[in-house]
Amino acid sequence: MSGNTFGKLFTVTSFGESHGPALGAIVDGCPPGLPITEADLQLDLDRRKPGQSRYTTQRREDDQVRILSGVFEGKTTGTAIGLMIENTDQRSKDYANIKDTYRPAHADYTYDQKYGFRDYRGGGRSSARETAMRVAAGAIAKKYLATVEGIEVVGYLSQLGPIEMAPVDLSIVNDNAFFCPDPTKLPELEAYMQALIKEGNSVGAKVTVVARGVKPGLGEPIFDRLDAELAHALMSINAVKGVEIGDGFASVAQKGTEHRDEMTPEGFLSNHAGGILGGISTGQDIIAHLALKPTSSLRLPGRSIDRNGNAISVETKGRHDPCVGIRATPIAEAMMAIVLMDHYLRHRGQNHGVIPPLPPIGNR
Amino acid sequence: MSGNTFGKLFTVTSFGESHGPALGAIVDGCPPGLPITEADLQLDLDRRKPGQSRYTTQRREDDQVRILSGVFEGKTTGTAIGLMIENTDQRSKDYANIKDTYRPAHADYTYDQKYGFRDYRGGGRSSARETAMRVAAGAIAKKYLATVEGIEVVGYLSQLGPIEMAPVDLSIVNDNAFFCPDPTKLPELEAYMQALIKEGNSVGAKVTVVARGVKPGLGEPIFDRLDAELAHALMSINAVKGVEIGDGFASVAQKGTEHRDEMTPEGFLSNHAGGILGGISTGQDIIAHLALKPTSSLRLPGRSIDRNGNAISVETKGRHDPCVGIRATPIAEAMMAIVLMDHYLRHRGQNHGVIPPLPPIGNR
Amino acid sequence: MSGNTFGKLFTVTSFGESHGPALGAIVDGCPPGLPITEADLQLDLDRRKPGQSRYTTQRREDDQVRILSGVFEGKTTGTAIGLMIENTDQRSKDYANIKDTYRPAHADYTYDQKYGFRDYRGGGRSSARETAMRVAAGAIAKKYLATVEGIEVVGYLSQLGPIEMAPVDLSIVNDNAFFCPDPTKLPELEAYMQALIKEGNSVGAKVTVVARGVKPGLGEPIFDRLDAELAHALMSINAVKGVEIGDGFASVAQKGTEHRDEMTPEGFLSNHAGGILGGISTGQDIIAHLALKPTSSLRLPGRSIDRNGNAISVETKGRHDPCVGIRATPIAEAMMAIVLMDHYLRHRGQNHGVIPPLPPIGNR
Amino acid sequence: MSGNTFGKLFTVTSFGESHGPALGAIVDGCPPGLPITEADLQLDLDRRKPGQSRYTTQRREDDQVRILSGVFEGKTTGTAIGLMIENTDQRSKDYANIKDTYRPAHADYTYDQKYGFRDYRGGGRSSARETAMRVAAGAIAKKYLATVEGIEVVGYLSQLGPIEMAPVDLSIVNDNAFFCPDPTKLPELEAYMQALIKEGNSVGAKVTVVARGVKPGLGEPIFDRLDAELAHALMSINAVKGVEIGDGFASVAQKGTEHRDEMTPEGFLSNHAGGILGGISTGQDIIAHLALKPTSSLRLPGRSIDRNGNAISVETKGRHDPCVGIRATPIAEAMMAIVLMDHYLRHRGQNHGVIPPLPPIGNR
Repeated sequence: MSGNTFGKLFTVTSFGESHGPALGAIVDGCPPGLPITEADLQLDLDRRKPGQSRYTTQRREDDQVRILSGVFEGKTTGTAIGLMIENTDQRSKDYANIKDTYRPAHADYTYDQKYGFRDYRGGGRSSARETAMRVAAGAIAKKYLATVEGIEVVGYLSQLGPIEMAPVDLSIVNDNAFFCPDPTKLPELEAYMQALIKEGNSVGAKVTVVARGVKPGLGEPIFDRLDAELAHALMSINAVKGVEIGDGFASVAQKGTEHRDEMTPEGFLSNHAGGILGGISTGQDIIAHLALKPTSSLRLPGRSIDRNGNAISVETKGRHDPCVGIRATPIAEAMMAIVLMDHYLRHRGQNHGVIPPLPPIGNR
Repeated sequence: MSGNTFGKLFTVTSFGESHGPALGAIVDGCPPGLPITEADLQLDLDRRKPGQSRYTTQRREDDQVRILSGVFEGKTTGTAIGLMIENTDQRSKDYANIKDTYRPAHADYTYDQKYGFRDYRGGGRSSARETAMRVAAGAIAKKYLATVEGIEVVGYLSQLGPIEMAPVDLSIVNDNAFFCPDPTKLPELEAYMQALIKEGNSVGAKVTVVARGVKPGLGEPIFDRLDAELAHALMSINAVKGVEIGDGFASVAQKGTEHRDEMTPEGFLSNHAGGILGGISTGQDIIAHLALKPTSSLRLPGRSIDRNGNAISVETKGRHDPCVGIRATPIAEAMMAIVLMDHYLRHRGQNHGVIPPLPPIGNR
Repeated sequence: MSGNTFGKLFTVTSFGESHGPALGAIVDGCPPGLPITEADLQLDLDRRKPGQSRYTTQRREDDQVRILSGVFEGKTTGTAIGLMIENTDQRSKDYANIKDTYRPAHADYTYDQKYGFRDYRGGGRSSARETAMRVAAGAIAKKYLATVEGIEVVGYLSQLGPIEMAPVDLSIVNDNAFFCPDPTKLPELEAYMQALIKEGNSVGAKVTVVARGVKPGLGEPIFDRLDAELAHALMSINAVKGVEIGDGFASVAQKGTEHRDEMTPEGFLSNHAGGILGGISTGQDIIAHLALKPTSSLRLPGRSIDRNGNAISVETKGRHDPCVGIRATPIAEAMMAIVLMDHYLRHRGQNHGVIPPLPPIGNR
Repeated sequence: MSGNTFGKLFTVTSFGESHGPALGAIVDGCPPGLPITEADLQLDLDRRKPGQSRYTTQRREDDQVRILSGVFEGKTTGTAIGLMIENTDQRSKDYANIKDTYRPAHADYTYDQKYGFRDYRGGGRSSARETAMRVAAGAIAKKYLATVEGIEVVGYLSQLGPIEMAPVDLSIVNDNAFFCPDPTKLPELEAYMQALIKEGNSVGAKVTVVARGVKPGLGEPIFDRLDAELAHALMSINAVKGVEIGDGFASVAQKGTEHRDEMTPEGFLSNHAGGILGGISTGQDIIAHLALKPTSSLRLPGRSIDRNGNAISVETKGRHDPCVGIRATPIAEAMMAIVLMDHYLRHRGQNHGVIPPLPPIGNR
């Protein structure tokens, strides 16, 4: 696997810089016969698009995805699916001043260290726009999982800065610009964001993604455990600094009697494990949390250096996100779906035929 | 990559159950000419061995590793290195009663769901003993990184249950059974553990692993980012429920002005990022934290079911860890070293020859 | 690796059907700083294009390739390079009659068996047009090898039906429509082809590809030996039924004293091995031969069945190649280049740093 | 995939030099529940062992294989299977004189070029003994294919030097030391070999391997086509210089009307394709041929150089094969089985569930 390919049987390979001619991806391994259209993909892409609210970036991204292969008469053929989004909003003049400067906490410095030079326009390959292709690819996986396996993948904002959401109602998550599941917190979130914009600062967020209806038995010991691959997929999203499965870091202070999920003939009594034990799914909801760092582009100036090592001050003008976490939700859903689909195919390939599987116990 | 192979140029493939004849691994891709001996590997294995203190398990594991290939006249040949540890301590009678029972929070249930049946003795493939091979493989990587690249990888216990360690002194980490860097906490840790053993319970832990001297530029956008691969490697360790890079989940509540690591001509002014930006190393210390759940084997009984779905009560007798976190430290070091070595080789393969790299700035 | 990705460090992933909207590929792992333009790629694509002579297909393929990412200010950035060719010549009416028929010796039957249904238009994914993307990707590899490593990759027609070419002059290979290196055979080839077209039949061909200037030491025992990967790459070209390295099948009847390439301080005395020993390059010319079967689309009717199993007769009208071998030459060059580039990067990644390599002996 | 791992779902990773402590392999991805014993593997290993006749090498290899993991109560568990063969016959004194010499047509020179130094004893990693592990791994695949899918894999000698075998009777292949299917040729083969031994020379061979009962639809366009992966697997065997599928190089001179395999409702009318079309299996017998070069170790002296570039004369004493082809047969069977098993698992993983497959037509 190169740095641009993810997965083993269901794979996603992507390309594209934020200010190059286009973004694209090749999605391979989707079984034949799945109904899929550009509209299916566009739905999830539009959820991700900036401009959904006055808090997210005002950069307009049209993000119209084209399916270039692998679909015939409305169904997948089983061959590779090529996807492409032409870049239409490339206001390079916003970025000319940063050609030789390193914006603090951006990948500018590290990209130059790695490659010797870089496409400086808008973050190039390190830009968050690259994630549009992941969302498009993830939409294919979500459709397969829903259609063929009856699985639902839902993400939501569980914390913004200091404000914690109680996941009261997943059904309202797509009805507000925050992907917030707790209607009582909306006014507080709006007020907090206003203050942030006025200050010129940003804040971090925590996003939670849940998969329901996953059968037990997915995951490949030892290194391709389901939790390890989820961690890989989610940590690969821009701005992610931490991943938890189930109780995550809360497990550190828990006693064994608190943490363990006891079993009865009716099902599990709790889900501290987050649906994964020994790296393999239990049949319960798979629950993962991501920590997203605050946006690196601020109006407030910061100290940095230029390409020649001179001290400079950097402030970013133009249009940016005060909180990237708001947009990470559909991307986290997409990555969860991509990993699950890969594991469904692998499991079917490797565990079938010689002995019949056991019936699973109930799931609470 | 199958479930048992990790890495791309420097790869580790392993096999072995806790009660089968042997554990083994094939380590491939180590460049030729590196001096390596069985003693080098045994050193790290002995750090991992239970019996180092009265708090860890009393199961005796001899863990004598043999090098079966890939080393000639004391140096690596560049071909595959076969490693093996014969299993000498296999007191199967400790496990006969669990043949058809599922211990809560163990992988028993999930393994049966995945495979239809399982080697029930002592956790089989899901046992923590499998990690002995990772430590052996990691010792090769650590030696290479130290010898050829001047890199040091150090792990330590940063939290046990509610007790937080200030990382006062990394130099004492290997002088106590806890891998604790804070000498003032040792009495408190001992007292806490005594109480736990008396109660028959267990508790979780947090382990931190640091890599020093890593050059900037490692990591492959988009999916093989260094942080994503570290997350994969660390989450694949038994009992891990969360992984953070740098400030991790603390980033959620941070403002942008707090989180960003500003740069001056003398170097970075802070390291909230944990040494990785945009998925690529910055040249600063790489800092990762792992959350380890409390041991699943308890004297205190828990509710579970047997293979036929009947309700049962399970308590584990015999010899077990009250806190697996104490032993995860050398395993986390090993995985960090394995990932870094793979990336050093990949970086050298892919970024050389056409243009010279930039000199890095200082590191604080 | 999925079915659509080739290589380990330098990878090519492709998509596209002959009658879908577009063909594309993602080329990843090219080091940064290599000068590359669309014109570089178009040069090799034009060599492949039908219509170069009155003997090859009269289907017009515009094959204008676009570079969509990974190149900035005329040089590779080190990130993934997206390539695309829009399909402009899609005369579907040529194919409507074969919707439910299986053309003998085409992949129609096997694709239906694999997927359950297929894009029947013009061979869909099995079409030879897919190879356009390989030629485009190979052009990047050829440029890197030539520019950075001083390697030349040349292919030519060594046999057409019963007519054998003596490789008199590689310098004229690109001056005729046959990629023929033997000017004395051109009239005979033309006459033979005329007769074939008149008959409505086709014939096979043998193509040879040579790489000059390859350094010794490339190839990874045991499974990624250079010859094994070349065999994989070349056999993956449509219509290839055999691959030889060096003397190939002539080795069967050779004595040991005949076959072995003796060495002197001035260099090797022969090259029966074709430049590869023990799976590793020797520094001599790497020589590979491909056997190409006769074109499967004939005006002469053949017996077949339709989708429902009924006996039918099939004859292909429209515009087709009487000898596909004529066009395989640039594709074979491309695949040779792709494999060599991948191995250069891997070799550099894995064999550097601890001990210096030996100086190679001369090459005759 | 490293150089030592083959396959995608069913993988084989190996290690071991001919004069190191042991050879070993890790076979991963075999579904659970398959009955397998050390005796199953030993059967195929014994077929491969030298000493079977007075024509093959007199080196005694005990080759007793141990199964170290992945099998419980006589059946595979689905986890990784570790295999090991201890090296018992290591008469290093046979090799002391070649420490600094390069034997012509051996991998000595290329290994030194690649790694800078090498384990000179008996060919080290390049030795044919490494293939013992492939045979052991292949035995697992053969058992699965036979037991679960009803597939038979048979190899035989089809040509030795100038002597061609008509494949009269596959049932006698294992009754003679040549794997010869043509009883009328046995006296001629014996006489030819006697003359060869007396002369101190060697000769090449052609081996054919056939798989019967393979279902249609295996193979992954574009790069993991079944024929391409077979070519890779077979070319990776020591001494192989060419691979053909079906009519192979005979296709070069064939007309389209001769080569195509017409179809009727009762089945295919011929099998020039060798069971693979468009890279996908047709359901017919899969037929592959390998060209093996003459043994490189001869009593007849040859010119070579030593490590310092001085001209020397080399003759090999000790015990060697006058024709390695005689032993390649079980290895070719093993590699064919390994590739087919990998593809069975991948096909099942990727082409199931959404639409039902078509029933295959008959096979002649």
